Amino acid sequence: MLLCDIGNTTATFYKDRKIWNLEIDKFRVWQPDEKVHFINVNDKIADKLNDPMFIDMSEFIKFNTTYIGLGIDRAAACYSINTGLVVDAGSAITMDVMSNGVHLGGLILPGISTTLKALKTISNRLDKPLNSAIDLDCLPQKTTDAISYGTIKPIILLVEELSNDKPIYFTGGDGEFLSRFFKNAIYDRALVFRGIQKAIDENKEIFCLQ
Amino acid sequence: MLLCDIGNTTATFYKDRKIWNLEIDKFRVWQPDEKVHFINVNDKIADKLNDPMFIDMSEFIKFNTTYIGLGIDRAAACYSINTGLVVDAGSAITMDVMSNGVHLGGLILPGISTTLKALKTISNRLDKPLNSAIDLDCLPQKTTDAISYGTIKPIILLVEELSNDKPIYFTGGDGEFLSRFFKNAIYDRALVFRGIQKAIDENKEIFCLQ
Repeated sequence: MLLCDIGNTTATFYKDRKIWNLEIDKFRVWQPDEKVHFINVNDKIADKLNDPMFIDMSEFIKFNTTYIGLGIDRAAACYSINTGLVVDAGSAITMDVMSNGVHLGGLILPGISTTLKALKTISNRLDKPLNSAIDLDCLPQKTTDAISYGTIKPIILLVEELSNDKPIYFTGGDGEFLSRFFKNAIYDRALVFRGIQKAIDENKEIFCLQ
Repeated sequence: MLLCDIGNTTATFYKDRKIWNLEIDKFRVWQPDEKVHFINVNDKIADKLNDPMFIDMSEFIKFNTTYIGLGIDRAAACYSINTGLVVDAGSAITMDVMSNGVHLGGLILPGISTTLKALKTISNRLDKPLNSAIDLDCLPQKTTDAISYGTIKPIILLVEELSNDKPIYFTGGDGEFLSRFFKNAIYDRALVFRGIQKAIDENKEIFCLQ
């Protein structure tokens, strides 16, 4: 079964435990040869998905929440777990708290690459690469480290604040890197797809007929 | 005595407890009618300052630090205090730790407006204004609050982490707003100028001759 998570810049596919990407412009002209169970946050691609080969999973991913406007990719990742903090670290970082299948709320901040790009817009002096080996126990002593600390440490502090000893699930492009700052954190590249798959499994009577 | 802190987008003046700004393009053509004791982080304006009316204070602002490349505006703010955390919250936010006149290190992260702009570049869905009345004790339940929480909370957590019960001094455009999240934090719009003034006072024999 082919699953797809369509974002603003890429469409990510999942099948038989394999994950791969298509840039959104390539996805636009791509023709599937099997049914695609998808979720989509990209308004610009909506027309393409009006095709019987594409099956929108969004209405099957439902849980208790008072949050208004939760992105379906965030919802899918949350749907895959019961209790814990879900951190999806891409161009934006979202953090969502789940407790016994109930979504308690979440937050959004710029991702690592977005933060570095944003600093660059302020001054060339702030145009520095990330020092991914930064020691967060020492105060930075040069600009590269000051920026790396100021980029990574706030994310770590937020995760500590929100996780509150619950399990922490990382996903997204920077998920593996960030998960290394925590003992017992789980990095799962396929978290969003596990949520989509769960929705399919729970609605087998519908999807076996298709 | 006229003091001036020249940044990338504005030059900020201080005289007789009054503070005012000039946009950098206006500063470029501005002619002083008295001597200007300045600090400058803007490489593009350096030529203008090769004039006997402009007195560079940077060499008089000195303290123990192993930090390489500390901006002179950050140094001036630190120079004004003895022990504490200095938070300069503008388009970038810098945090610097001082202990008994020694600079222990510092960090840099995007400021509030820069963070909101950066989120906007990711998706129109993230183009939201700051909810400055956000309750940081509750998990956000809509996008505006998720972004506001994700923008402000990391700054607060960093300040808590670095201040370590030392006094906290806020300055910069968002300094007053951020200082409200802390009991006993000091907001001082003129912190950088206090550092410049201190350097003048300590070198009176030089500056009285000018």
